[in-house]
Amino acid sequence: MGKDNKSVLVTAEQLADFIDRALQASGLPSADAACVAALMARADLQGSDGHGVIRLPQYVKRIRAGGINPRPDIRVAEERPGMAVVDGDNGMGHLVMSRAVELAIEKAAATGVAWVGTRASNHAGPASLYASMPIARDMIGLYFAVGSANHLPPWGGIDMLLSTNPIAVGIPAGAEPPVVLDMATTVAAYGKVKAKAKRGEQMPEGWMIGFDGRPLLDPNRAHEGFLLPIGGYKGYGLALVVGLLAGTLQGAAMGRDVVDFNKDHVTLTNTGQAILVLDLKAFGDPAAFKEAVDRLVRDIRGSRRLPGVDRIWLPGEQSHERRKAYAREGIPLPAEIVAELRELAGQWGVDPLQVQPS
Amino acid sequence: MGKDNKSVLVTAEQLADFIDRALQASGLPSADAACVAALMARADLQGSDGHGVIRLPQYVKRIRAGGINPRPDIRVAEERPGMAVVDGDNGMGHLVMSRAVELAIEKAAATGVAWVGTRASNHAGPASLYASMPIARDMIGLYFAVGSANHLPPWGGIDMLLSTNPIAVGIPAGAEPPVVLDMATTVAAYGKVKAKAKRGEQMPEGWMIGFDGRPLLDPNRAHEGFLLPIGGYKGYGLALVVGLLAGTLQGAAMGRDVVDFNKDHVTLTNTGQAILVLDLKAFGDPAAFKEAVDRLVRDIRGSRRLPGVDRIWLPGEQSHERRKAYAREGIPLPAEIVAELRELAGQWGVDPLQVQPS
Repeated sequence: MGKDNKSVLVTAEQLADFIDRALQASGLPSADAACVAALMARADLQGSDGHGVIRLPQYVKRIRAGGINPRPDIRVAEERPGMAVVDGDNGMGHLVMSRAVELAIEKAAATGVAWVGTRASNHAGPASLYASMPIARDMIGLYFAVGSANHLPPWGGIDMLLSTNPIAVGIPAGAEPPVVLDMATTVAAYGKVKAKAKRGEQMPEGWMIGFDGRPLLDPNRAHEGFLLPIGGYKGYGLALVVGLLAGTLQGAAMGRDVVDFNKDHVTLTNTGQAILVLDLKAFGDPAAFKEAVDRLVRDIRGSRRLPGVDRIWLPGEQSHERRKAYAREGIPLPAEIVAELRELAGQWGVDPLQVQPS
Repeated sequence: MGKDNKSVLVTAEQLADFIDRALQASGLPSADAACVAALMARADLQGSDGHGVIRLPQYVKRIRAGGINPRPDIRVAEERPGMAVVDGDNGMGHLVMSRAVELAIEKAAATGVAWVGTRASNHAGPASLYASMPIARDMIGLYFAVGSANHLPPWGGIDMLLSTNPIAVGIPAGAEPPVVLDMATTVAAYGKVKAKAKRGEQMPEGWMIGFDGRPLLDPNRAHEGFLLPIGGYKGYGLALVVGLLAGTLQGAAMGRDVVDFNKDHVTLTNTGQAILVLDLKAFGDPAAFKEAVDRLVRDIRGSRRLPGVDRIWLPGEQSHERRKAYAREGIPLPAEIVAELRELAGQWGVDPLQVQPS
């Protein structure tokens, strides 16, 4: 595809600095802009390219249209020793979820296990970011979210009542990289469809079907069909229960109340997310747990393989490797995205994205 | 398939009475035998026929061989306000998990959210039984378990390091049946493979592939291949993290330490399970939550449908309907299973299973 010819290299710092400028120019306080910028750059650094800087134009448009509150009063609306619901006051999802994870870590340290959900939140980027945050504290994170647009009908139906509702789990290891699963309950996440469209590529068969029941391959025609759930009715069931847990339980939008934030830049999304944190110390010796994870990881990596398979990957391992490579060599961004961001920087009145010399 | 000609009808009470007799004759105290028998009969009543009375011969064989402790000292091994690990002392899994759910409900009432895991437990029947238990208390249940035999290799591999590791979620509704998802992380659960073998039926393509990479359809040749995970690498990732959460975290068996209890009737399985309970009251008004679930359920059921689809089902709704029908009309058991149980009753020295007049 000649990807290298059309890519520009940037560092995570250059990305974060640019995002920071754009968000501050849109009215976010500097600490909040820096927090969101760091998380968005971290998404690109690990190759979650459907959730990094590619989302910036959409976020800025929504903030400037009044659809996201740039100066929210994020507060705890419900609380028990082992749980809380954080009301995000329609702030950036990254801020609301960062607050939720901090609180869940604090509570789990006291009770062993804690659940913190959000309402009046917004799109928060890749699920793995939040599920991974407890790892450094020797804690496990499980993250559930209601996707920010409905692209999935119930199994057998055609009304778009469900989203890709992702699940992410972050589990500490010892010498091995942590096990980090981040999966949409659809065969593909909608962010990946958008990334394909940006890159001018076709989707593989099996990602979406049209309302006519036929495979849909052109990502620019995504509105003419829907994403397929993993395992058929099982993925539909997972998307539903994740939405009930992350949305309905928190008093956030679910089902027909979900706002398509790709098309609508003004209506409050009332997005819901939830993080569950488990403190390893409560269960026994964290070092023994992490050794057991290392042993399992090595058993799995060392499994005999099917013909034609070069390597067995653990969940999160490819992102881990990519993070190391991109930190060393730079993050490749499609040249057309860099050009679009340059033009937008002019409109926003901020200095453009600095890139690595080619 | 002439299923009706080969079926015998029994009531849930007849099933439970027979199971109770068989377990007491194997050394279980009467209260424990009654608890396990009621749960096993409930499995058959909801159509979870891979996990009901069909498992009795295997359980009894294991108890009599010393592989299950008929009089366990089930105790709390680790505890914090929001969590516990229950050591099952190698008792019947149904007993260990019942204790775990009771404790999780009690803790969740105090902290809002609680996680109780098990170690030294055993196969406990269908996941949905435990995920559903909190529903009557206006609580949500999430259940994770390590399957009792490894039938799944890592994605790309052929070593059987993973099991079907099920996930179940039970969510209260108002006037509608509760939403109860119960899914193996493989396309089919191994219990369903066993049920197909018992019935002399072939498996559909996509359940298993052989080590030669070709579809495997004969359930009696299940040892010549492995179960396929849902969504390819996603199902593999789910099976792995469920195993880490339900097994490794609790100090229970995972990976190569999992004992195949279909082949080995003596070695301690050290099975691990976990239940997470969320108390609706902590999140707001339970009635408002249940109304929101009802509304969502009706929106989903009322969705426009793909051509050829008669009805859209919610997770757990088919089991709910089957439970009502079987309670009214009797539970159909394959005649060959009834004959096998009659023969075993003689060996065990207990009165045989009573059945409905045909």
